[in-house]
Amino acid sequence: MKIVIIGGVAGGASAAARARRLDETAEIVVLERGEHPSFANCGLPYYVGGKIESRQKLLVAPVKMLRERHRLDVRTRSEVTQIDREKHIVHVRNLDSNESYLESYDKLVIATGAASFRPAIPGIESSRVMELRDLADADRMHAVVTSTAKRAVIVGGGFIGIEVAENLVSRGIHVTLVELGDQILTPWDREMIGSIDAHMRAQGVDIRLNDSVERFEETQGGLRMLLKSGETMEADFAVVSIGVRPESKLAVDSGIECAPRGGVVTNEHMQTSDPDIYAVGDVSQVQCFVSKTPIQIPLAGPANRQGRIAADHIFGRESSYRGTQGTAIVGVFGMTAAMTGLSEKVLQRSSIAYEKVYIHPSDHAGYYPGAQPLTLKLLFDPKSGVVLGAQCVGTSGVDKRIDVIAMAIQAGMTVFDLEEVELCYAPQYGHAKDPVNMAGFVASGVVRGDQPLVHANALAGDNGAFLLDVRSESEFAAGHIPGATNIPLESLRERKSELPQGQKINAYCKVGQRGYVATRILMQHRFDVANVSGGYTSWGHHQH
Amino acid sequence: MKIVIIGGVAGGASAAARARRLDETAEIVVLERGEHPSFANCGLPYYVGGKIESRQKLLVAPVKMLRERHRLDVRTRSEVTQIDREKHIVHVRNLDSNESYLESYDKLVIATGAASFRPAIPGIESSRVMELRDLADADRMHAVVTSTAKRAVIVGGGFIGIEVAENLVSRGIHVTLVELGDQILTPWDREMIGSIDAHMRAQGVDIRLNDSVERFEETQGGLRMLLKSGETMEADFAVVSIGVRPESKLAVDSGIECAPRGGVVTNEHMQTSDPDIYAVGDVSQVQCFVSKTPIQIPLAGPANRQGRIAADHIFGRESSYRGTQGTAIVGVFGMTAAMTGLSEKVLQRSSIAYEKVYIHPSDHAGYYPGAQPLTLKLLFDPKSGVVLGAQCVGTSGVDKRIDVIAMAIQAGMTVFDLEEVELCYAPQYGHAKDPVNMAGFVASGVVRGDQPLVHANALAGDNGAFLLDVRSESEFAAGHIPGATNIPLESLRERKSELPQGQKINAYCKVGQRGYVATRILMQHRFDVANVSGGYTSWGHHQH
Repeated sequence: MKIVIIGGVAGGASAAARARRLDETAEIVVLERGEHPSFANCGLPYYVGGKIESRQKLLVAPVKMLRERHRLDVRTRSEVTQIDREKHIVHVRNLDSNESYLESYDKLVIATGAASFRPAIPGIESSRVMELRDLADADRMHAVVTSTAKRAVIVGGGFIGIEVAENLVSRGIHVTLVELGDQILTPWDREMIGSIDAHMRAQGVDIRLNDSVERFEETQGGLRMLLKSGETMEADFAVVSIGVRPESKLAVDSGIECAPRGGVVTNEHMQTSDPDIYAVGDVSQVQCFVSKTPIQIPLAGPANRQGRIAADHIFGRESSYRGTQGTAIVGVFGMTAAMTGLSEKVLQRSSIAYEKVYIHPSDHAGYYPGAQPLTLKLLFDPKSGVVLGAQCVGTSGVDKRIDVIAMAIQAGMTVFDLEEVELCYAPQYGHAKDPVNMAGFVASGVVRGDQPLVHANALAGDNGAFLLDVRSESEFAAGHIPGATNIPLESLRERKSELPQGQKINAYCKVGQRGYVATRILMQHRFDVANVSGGYTSWGHHQH
Repeated sequence: MKIVIIGGVAGGASAAARARRLDETAEIVVLERGEHPSFANCGLPYYVGGKIESRQKLLVAPVKMLRERHRLDVRTRSEVTQIDREKHIVHVRNLDSNESYLESYDKLVIATGAASFRPAIPGIESSRVMELRDLADADRMHAVVTSTAKRAVIVGGGFIGIEVAENLVSRGIHVTLVELGDQILTPWDREMIGSIDAHMRAQGVDIRLNDSVERFEETQGGLRMLLKSGETMEADFAVVSIGVRPESKLAVDSGIECAPRGGVVTNEHMQTSDPDIYAVGDVSQVQCFVSKTPIQIPLAGPANRQGRIAADHIFGRESSYRGTQGTAIVGVFGMTAAMTGLSEKVLQRSSIAYEKVYIHPSDHAGYYPGAQPLTLKLLFDPKSGVVLGAQCVGTSGVDKRIDVIAMAIQAGMTVFDLEEVELCYAPQYGHAKDPVNMAGFVASGVVRGDQPLVHANALAGDNGAFLLDVRSESEFAAGHIPGATNIPLESLRERKSELPQGQKINAYCKVGQRGYVATRILMQHRFDVANVSGGYTSWGHHQH
């Protein structure tokens, strides 16, 4: 058995190591275009920013180790230029000598990853317009940020853009971040990301939403950018990070089936339309675990698993990929945003029925010092209660809650299951009723009909409704939703005659808990009442 | 409907609030023996230690709030002395006036919790021998530790004992901890807890295992203890915390069925043998979620859920309790131990077939600064791979991994599922292959037969085996398992002729990963080889 693997980073490296563990006799050739296989892709921004001091640390599986430990024939600076499927041969160019040669294969694994999308903006070819996909990019950017650079413009507010922004700021560089859309971090729903946006601005990042660069011009020692908004900006360099495209040209050229968005189409064993060729990692299109529709989503964990599965299948094992559920996390200036499953906007685009709840608990028991606020959004099927997705933002305990809900999605659990799950509790770690349980309580109440909800983003359209603020008088005085009437929860029973029978009442408090109690009280007195999910806090998140 | 609830802390308070949300018209009487309902039980040690500065913070649901918000008839300092099931009446004593009265009920909820077990040790009645179960205890201990106390002896190395030890040390008090068993934190397996034990000793806690106090004697201004080991110890005060017993006397006296260990027997709706009487929280016996056998395990989260379920059932809802899976966590001096499901010792006692693996990953990617070691033990069915339990110890990311595996247990997942689950990954939060995935990989390899394992604790009995250390020469020189031969993994293929064919080979590395690769290599060359699970690190954990 001779296996040739094109690309030696996440998916390719995993396929190679797994193949060796399964078969000592196989010939395994890894062709990597770059200088290093298996470098720490996700560490690049932190190397640029100096958080990771040693470049050596990024080389997580050096060639020497792959050769000696796994007896892999790793060839760096080796670019595959063509796949000849009929002859079972790839054409390889040695990028150092510029010589080309042929390499035969029994099974081929395409793990070429994805390349930065570089739109046709005039001047984008300037060496001052950088990207950050590989070690060579990181080296170039590292050199710039440790020299005299004072200002940078980042184009694109995705994962890389956000992480680079943080790291440039930590180098003392002034950062302007230009994002075409109306929010940064578009995988999340917009109202969830406002606090991250505000936090970044507070750290000095100049965020420009709904804008884009229309032209780059080199100046003496710098770069000038003309924005769509008409503004002109000067900087030492720019970083373009507006998404990636599968590097599937080799597959396309050789007639392997690719999807409209460019990803190589595979079956559950990561096999392409040619059964002797597999595609793993960012180059492959996968199925969404939740919606069962094709998606193109670049993530390191799935890439590793796909590589493993491809190797298994090459050696006759029936391992199969379950689909990608889109679990993702990003940290910036001490805040964290994480998500799993489908976002509300994807649910809307996919016309999948859903309901949602917001909760705003603290990461751990409020009576123990250092408790920090979290916002957790849970999306679920309105009838069955099956969990469809979740998003969480805060400074601590964010990854934990999303990981827990990621497990719920993997297991096909419902919001009723979330009520019951038994998680770690001591006051410095969580709550006796963990935020995940709380989200389950609220969502289950909605599915069961115990708690009719109205969403903060729908309040404006609910003009005929009576808006009831059940917080304390002092909370109300400090700020409230326009048009609201204040009756504190504690006096609601006595003062319910002040409320209109027959008119819709929308009740809210700070985060939704007192609003829920108020809703339960008023429902039993036959008022037509709904609780504003996430309360005044969620309303605030929708105002930006 | 008139509901009387005996006990107003976790389970009782939850039952009362839930009952009110379900029925505005119900009469709900909460009879609490102490001064405060719903105080922060788990915060008591941290109030004693000063981490929680304000006593007020412990009163999470003050009487006023319960009365006004939930219209509960909360009566503190009110002790129920008798249940008259026939007449549906309880006898109540007002502990301030010492007057008694009768209170009728339609449904009764027993939420009396558990009391500290105080063994019949001579002198234990001294006021200098304290416990820490309620606010009054905390007040007494707070007064002592903020006065002149310099030395304390803690009897019992369970949750409370450990937490009190940390908090007394933070008050500058010298602590000796006396534990009858051969380990602290007995819910965990012994080899998992050695690092916590060592860490506590390093912080100055004088831990005495396999010892106990045989006599307390008051001295002038202090306390003298005679230990079983023969030693005599002087201290300003002692804290006895050797477990709790369900406070089920009321139930027993009224003829309600109780289990041999004292817990009130209930069905899945928390209903006792008297259908009008429910028992929730630490007073009730529950079913183990994993083994489906009765257990008595005091945990706050389950108590809250049980209270809710009892209230639901009173109002005709079919909510049912799924059993307690024993998810628990404790923090001490910056280290954390967490667990879920069954421990190895419980599996052994219960004669349940199991296999186990140990891994020693870092909490997040090693190339990102601040990565800290974790030890994770996974217990699973050797045939089906169903997850039975997990334990984790470290300084960061411990709660997350156990919560994730707690979800796996809830969902009935297998180790094959753990391979596939998609968790948050960015280098500061985790790994592209999360420790949970890694544990899944290793365990799946064992179930599939890809990786025969031998356990560090069984090595000593494996005398006829050849012990192979595949670490580097320098690692070997710095310390190795006695009797081992060193052949670094990188030269194993070339030097395999040095290995005995036909003899059992036990291969190990530092944590098990290189040992796994070595095992795969040697298996394919038809050696009879097994990997030492968790490697040299796990071997070290078994040496204490």
